[in-house]
Amino acid sequence: MSNVDVVAESGKQMIVITQIFDAPRDLVWKVYTDPKLLPKWWGPKMLKTDVERMDVKTGGSWRVVQQDPEGNKYVFHGVYHDVKPYQTTRTMEWDGMPDHVLLEAIKMEEMDGKTKVTNNTVFQSVEDRDGMVETGMKDGVNESYDRFVELLKELQK
Amino acid sequence: MSNVDVVAESGKQMIVITQIFDAPRDLVWKVYTDPKLLPKWWGPKMLKTDVERMDVKTGGSWRVVQQDPEGNKYVFHGVYHDVKPYQTTRTMEWDGMPDHVLLEAIKMEEMDGKTKVTNNTVFQSVEDRDGMVETGMKDGVNESYDRFVELLKELQK
Repeated sequence: MSNVDVVAESGKQMIVITQIFDAPRDLVWKVYTDPKLLPKWWGPKMLKTDVERMDVKTGGSWRVVQQDPEGNKYVFHGVYHDVKPYQTTRTMEWDGMPDHVLLEAIKMEEMDGKTKVTNNTVFQSVEDRDGMVETGMKDGVNESYDRFVELLKELQK
Repeated sequence: MSNVDVVAESGKQMIVITQIFDAPRDLVWKVYTDPKLLPKWWGPKMLKTDVERMDVKTGGSWRVVQQDPEGNKYVFHGVYHDVKPYQTTRTMEWDGMPDHVLLEAIKMEEMDGKTKVTNNTVFQSVEDRDGMVETGMKDGVNESYDRFVELLKELQK
C-alpha cells in the first residue's frame, strides 16, 4: 500500500484520498485541525496561506486565503457540519467557481502505530469532480502530503 | 413537464428534484425558509414536526424533530453552507444513520409567472443515495409537494 492513494473512478462524482502517516493519531489530528499549523502544509509551498477563520467545531466556519507570487488571491471557505474525535465533515467552496460546493469527510484511524487518514470528497456533479482532477490535484495532494510529513518530523524532534 | 420530477440516475450518487409552483417566487421562498411554516409542509402529514433550530443564513444551523403516532422520533440536522437570494446550500444528516451526510442545494427560478424549484442533493456514496430512494422517498416528495401547494393557497387567500 502506497502512503498516498488518490481514487477518482470514471463517471463518479467522488474522490477518495488515503494517506498514511508514520505518527501517532493525536499528533496527526492536531496538525490537521490547528489553524496556526495549516499554512505550513495546506496546498503548494509557493502559495502564501492565511487562515482568516477556522473554527473547528460542529457549526463552525472556515475561510482560507492563498496568494501566489504575482499577488493573485484564491479564497476557500465553508462550514463544519460536524467535528467528532478524529473526524470532520465540512463543506468547501472556491470563490473562483462560486456555487460549486463540495462535501469533505475526513476520518483518522490507528493502524499498526501509524495513522491512516481517509478523505472522502463528493461533488455536486461529475463535471465538478472531473474539473478538480484536471487542476493537477494529484500533484497538489502529494505536495501537501510531503509538507505534512516534514511538519510531523519537526514537531516530533 | 410534470409539476414534480424526481431523477435518480442508476449508478450516480445524486438525486435531482424539480418542482413547479403556481405562485410568485417571493412567496415560495418565504414558505421554504420560514421555520414557523415548515411543520405545515415538510414530510408526511402523519408526523408531528418540531423545528428546534432553523437559522437560515450562511453559517447557520438547523435541527428538526419529527414524531410518529407511536412516539418514535426522527431527528434531522445540519448547517447552511450559504444562503443567497432564492438559493440555499446546506448539509443534512438523519440521526438514525449517523455519519452519512448529504449536501442539498436549492435554487428557485421565475418561469412564466410560476416558480421552478430545483433541489440537487448529493450523497457520500451510491449506496447512501440508493438507500434514500428505497425509503419511498418519491411518495414523500409528492406528499410534501401537495402540502406545500395547499399552504400556498391558504397564504394567497
